[in-house]
Amino acid sequence: MTIDEKYMQLALDLAASAKGNTNPNPLVGAVIVKDGVIVGTGLHRKAGEPHAEVHAFRMAGEHAKGATLYVTLEPCSHYGKTPPCANLVKESAVSRVVVAMQDPNPAVAGRGIQLLRDAGIEVEVGILEAQARRLNERFIHNMLTKRPFIISKYAMTLDGKIAAHTGHSKWITGEAAREDVHRIRHEVDGILVGVGTVLADNPSLTTRLKEGYGKNPVRIIMDSSLRTPAHANVLNVEEAKTIIVCSENASQEKITAFEEKGVTVLPVRHESEGLVVDDMLEKLYQYGITDILVEGGSTINASFLQQGAINKYVIYIAPKILGGRLSLTPIAGHNPSTMDEAWDVEFASFEQVGQDLRIIAYPKIGEKK
Amino acid sequence: MTIDEKYMQLALDLAASAKGNTNPNPLVGAVIVKDGVIVGTGLHRKAGEPHAEVHAFRMAGEHAKGATLYVTLEPCSHYGKTPPCANLVKESAVSRVVVAMQDPNPAVAGRGIQLLRDAGIEVEVGILEAQARRLNERFIHNMLTKRPFIISKYAMTLDGKIAAHTGHSKWITGEAAREDVHRIRHEVDGILVGVGTVLADNPSLTTRLKEGYGKNPVRIIMDSSLRTPAHANVLNVEEAKTIIVCSENASQEKITAFEEKGVTVLPVRHESEGLVVDDMLEKLYQYGITDILVEGGSTINASFLQQGAINKYVIYIAPKILGGRLSLTPIAGHNPSTMDEAWDVEFASFEQVGQDLRIIAYPKIGEKK
Repeated sequence: MTIDEKYMQLALDLAASAKGNTNPNPLVGAVIVKDGVIVGTGLHRKAGEPHAEVHAFRMAGEHAKGATLYVTLEPCSHYGKTPPCANLVKESAVSRVVVAMQDPNPAVAGRGIQLLRDAGIEVEVGILEAQARRLNERFIHNMLTKRPFIISKYAMTLDGKIAAHTGHSKWITGEAAREDVHRIRHEVDGILVGVGTVLADNPSLTTRLKEGYGKNPVRIIMDSSLRTPAHANVLNVEEAKTIIVCSENASQEKITAFEEKGVTVLPVRHESEGLVVDDMLEKLYQYGITDILVEGGSTINASFLQQGAINKYVIYIAPKILGGRLSLTPIAGHNPSTMDEAWDVEFASFEQVGQDLRIIAYPKIGEKK
Repeated sequence: MTIDEKYMQLALDLAASAKGNTNPNPLVGAVIVKDGVIVGTGLHRKAGEPHAEVHAFRMAGEHAKGATLYVTLEPCSHYGKTPPCANLVKESAVSRVVVAMQDPNPAVAGRGIQLLRDAGIEVEVGILEAQARRLNERFIHNMLTKRPFIISKYAMTLDGKIAAHTGHSKWITGEAAREDVHRIRHEVDGILVGVGTVLADNPSLTTRLKEGYGKNPVRIIMDSSLRTPAHANVLNVEEAKTIIVCSENASQEKITAFEEKGVTVLPVRHESEGLVVDDMLEKLYQYGITDILVEGGSTINASFLQQGAINKYVIYIAPKILGGRLSLTPIAGHNPSTMDEAWDVEFASFEQVGQDLRIIAYPKIGEKK
């Protein structure tokens, strides 16, 4: 690891600590170093609060002169809720800026960097870029597609089963893996299941973390004909917000009944295969949902897969073998005839979480069926 | 790692290099060290050839006097094809012996060690014992149960599928993982599939290694009513031996026809659930098969699972998502009603092999349904 990478890693770590708090903004961290001493640090904590660079320059004060700024994202060049950071960088009189990645918005990418170079500041771009892109995978996806970033999560046995044929599935994974899922729930805007899961398990879908600070995501129920029972736990809107996604053809009477309970009802297009995922995602993004953890059963997972909507997989594999010809598997849906119809993914990590194995994977770039 | 562990690791590595060649004997390695210099090394290469200690003492000669012997298995104390190694150790005048594990045969365990201690030699037992046990897992299992050691191998997608509903499965894993399987074939005495696999894929079940030295295991076909076609590739007995396991009630005429082709036919007990796995394994062990790689489809895998016959799992997971409600999963068989009926296993390792993930797991000790 070079010296530049070391400080950029620190900036990335600072940024990552705010995961789940900055939506819809990106995670950004900044470190200012002069003569081998860190003179300023900062991170973007929350939308509406100062950008990472602002905190770092406040701390650095006069020490910024002639120093190097490490920042995980290209400093912004436009007036938003705050003045452009590129101007601040110029005024600070740092002599060198190291940037992990350009702004993902193709319309403005490179402008902040150009502004600094024009002011005679040495700028280096691309240090730990892959990590920076992964850190802001949600933000980049939002920017490029105007859709929420979709994380498909499932837990299965070592022989690929998520439940017995009866639907019984408690528990596949151990406590550490289940806690890990609650940590993801804390970090996302939305959590999505199908009405089948509501009917079978009556889950609350809230975040329960040992540390006690869990933030509840908005609960999103895919329920084309509005079958969610009136006393379902997910309808307790005092605990967390709930959106029920139904077909455009759903009964207006039922819609009104849900709305009177304080639930948001979102009608979306419906085709023979069921609700159109992309139409739903477009509307959810407009509603302000930037990322969603899909904890659906095998049918919901299959809809997302087959409509090409999954951006990341978080898979827990338990040290158990269940067997059973009729046991349920993580992804069902329509039946491919050959292995060539499989969707390719790329493994990003394997890690033991308590007794279980966690695999993180991404759809292979350019993969489209 | 202590100095003792370092030399024991070397002895284990020497032993491991003969994997697949020593059956029915164990893998054993020996290292003799004097004043920090390795003066003797040896390993058991093949049944009938000298034991590891013999090679090491031949190399050490006079240097053995006052040296330390590291040996992965307790030196034998009985007259077999060769005289007892414990006597040789005594005569060599080494002053210290470090042993990884006692003889797994409870009837003789500790006798060789006692013989050395009685001769005034310092003996330490249990250095890297866990590795030594794993290295000789096949031998230990044979010794204690008089059955072959069963390795269940399957390759599945990240959503737990081994084939499309049509049976199409070529290929799930990449070249490196498939080569890895051929390496295991080279190391085992037998490879087992069901007649269903023979009918569907007509495999040869031979070992094809790039290095060109692959040893073919005996092919074992579970085929209760002798449906294997006369021209199946597995019947080419010039390439490798073949055993067809059938029901005790199978037609004598068919049995004779197979025997005339040079195939061994092994009738075993048959119950409503199919062939009785334990009866088959008892007979195969008597026939000289000490370990078997089970490459069966989901039904064969389920028979072995549900009859408690699997000793080790080697599972390849490909970076692919297939989906499909009717796609095939690695283990089918009778349908459990709850997750509590799952068989617990312990992960031993996760490793990327080419593009795929390889998981090695063992049934949890004491696990019995």
